Amino acid sequence: MNWAAMTTFDDATAVTKRAEGRYDAHADPRFALVAPGSSAAPPAVNGGVLMATVLRAVLEEAPNPHPVATSANFLRVPRLGAAEVHVSWLKQGKTASTARAALVQDGAPVVDMTVTTGTVPGGPASADISTAGEADGRTAALAWTGVPPVMPALADCVDLGAWPGTAGANGEAGFAAHVTVLLDPAVTGWRSREPSGVPEMRGYVALREPRDPDALLLAFAVDALPPVVFGLGATGWAPTVELTWHMRAVPQPGPLWVAARSRHVGGGWFDEEAEVWDAAGRLVAQSRQLARVGRGPRRVTPAAAAAQLAALEGA
Amino acid sequence: MNWAAMTTFDDATAVTKRAEGRYDAHADPRFALVAPGSSAAPPAVNGGVLMATVLRAVLEEAPNPHPVATSANFLRVPRLGAAEVHVSWLKQGKTASTARAALVQDGAPVVDMTVTTGTVPGGPASADISTAGEADGRTAALAWTGVPPVMPALADCVDLGAWPGTAGANGEAGFAAHVTVLLDPAVTGWRSREPSGVPEMRGYVALREPRDPDALLLAFAVDALPPVVFGLGATGWAPTVELTWHMRAVPQPGPLWVAARSRHVGGGWFDEEAEVWDAAGRLVAQSRQLARVGRGPRRVTPAAAAAQLAALEGA
Repeated sequence: MNWAAMTTFDDATAVTKRAEGRYDAHADPRFALVAPGSSAAPPAVNGGVLMATVLRAVLEEAPNPHPVATSANFLRVPRLGAAEVHVSWLKQGKTASTARAALVQDGAPVVDMTVTTGTVPGGPASADISTAGEADGRTAALAWTGVPPVMPALADCVDLGAWPGTAGANGEAGFAAHVTVLLDPAVTGWRSREPSGVPEMRGYVALREPRDPDALLLAFAVDALPPVVFGLGATGWAPTVELTWHMRAVPQPGPLWVAARSRHVGGGWFDEEAEVWDAAGRLVAQSRQLARVGRGPRRVTPAAAAAQLAALEGA
Repeated sequence: MNWAAMTTFDDATAVTKRAEGRYDAHADPRFALVAPGSSAAPPAVNGGVLMATVLRAVLEEAPNPHPVATSANFLRVPRLGAAEVHVSWLKQGKTASTARAALVQDGAPVVDMTVTTGTVPGGPASADISTAGEADGRTAALAWTGVPPVMPALADCVDLGAWPGTAGANGEAGFAAHVTVLLDPAVTGWRSREPSGVPEMRGYVALREPRDPDALLLAFAVDALPPVVFGLGATGWAPTVELTWHMRAVPQPGPLWVAARSRHVGGGWFDEEAEVWDAAGRLVAQSRQLARVGRGPRRVTPAAAAAQLAALEGA
């Protein structure tokens, strides 16, 4: 799999072991975003890329192959440049092992994570999670999946392209130059100040360079879409405070379909829960994050605002 | 609020500060459950009670009033008896502060948690989260809530009563003696080996002693129902590996309605996501946990098994 190590994503998330539980890493400008509406702020590296960086160190040491549960707390805005990853194990077991890990800069944790590793179904030679019901009546073989989200055809989706605010301060092309995001047309109204009034976001996510999805790319995919509150016209910077995601199966090659929604926006906080489905139509990851609603005015036309208010009052 | 300190729940989750970031606590037999089908195993204290114990220590030190995001990793089965709670802060801020905290026995973490504190709406004098839309067009005032789950009337629900397996090894009455669980009749088929075939669970949860809900009771409520996989006939012990919950509002007095579902069961793992709504009809907490499917045969009649298989094949 040497080809994988050559993509920009793999280079940006690379770690080098320096000592027991200590790795050299970096916050890479090639995956930075400038906060919308606040070009004076320093560009910040996408949270999913930081999670993938820390996960790479954890998986290098883990006795189990997959990160089944990852919780990340985003404590500080990373400075572009050198960082360390610290890993320590709370438990190592055959079924599950749990590590604490952090991306550290200047001695302070930037992203603090807890990762439980285990084994999930899937992989090239496996079809075991698509089995409905089970042959022997034992619960360990139970398989059940909820109704998948509706996915429009790739060709019908809107390519976000190289949207504004994705260039690093040093002029290097940022996030959008390395990621293809194709949105369901139904969730793109915010681009013309006519948001749908529903906090949801759906689209296909893939790196522009050819690379098969794996656990690291799932960590990236769960936070790769624009925030769901864009659907309410809140297109300001919406910092993630806490994000937990679960890997449920090894993804098959192809683009990942990400469907995200919110259940509640209030008090300046919103939840965003995303499901990631692979090209074989399997649920491969689930996430939920708690984030802050961005400050600033809503970007919505008076007509769209009136229509949203009418819908809320009629509900 | 001295009355609150007198309930069994408050006594069972009590902590006493011993030094900076160090508390004496205990795993209380009064909230223990014996693993179903494995009475030889020692009784384990309910995970929500352990989370509430650790949260009590965190909130005693926190600069913000509410635990907005709590991630818990259940590493070991607690021994009934003395424990410590360790708390250390990764960040303290006006909007959000983050602590690492753990319930520790014999020098090893039993439950390892990360808690972010902040401020959520609600409380006796507040009605701000029920406001649809906002007056000034600023995103910080945004309020939106998804469609609530259908809640049957309390009188129509099934009282689980003192179900088997809830007595501590020392003969003290366990979990069910202190908790009222009233289930939606639609999710009780597993009691007669006729599970619905859908991994979901819904019901009202309250302590038997009068006590208003708060953050600690929300930590308890998110894991108080029988596991959702009971709906598939998998009624064995289903240990939680990781659980993250978000507090979204201060609950009003009255019983809590908990609606839980799963999106995917496979490879021996299942997710269980719960919403907690208060007596005023507000979404007050959300959780998702990753747990292991219990071992052993499914408890399901041949007729119910055939009906489930037909439903799966027809899907």
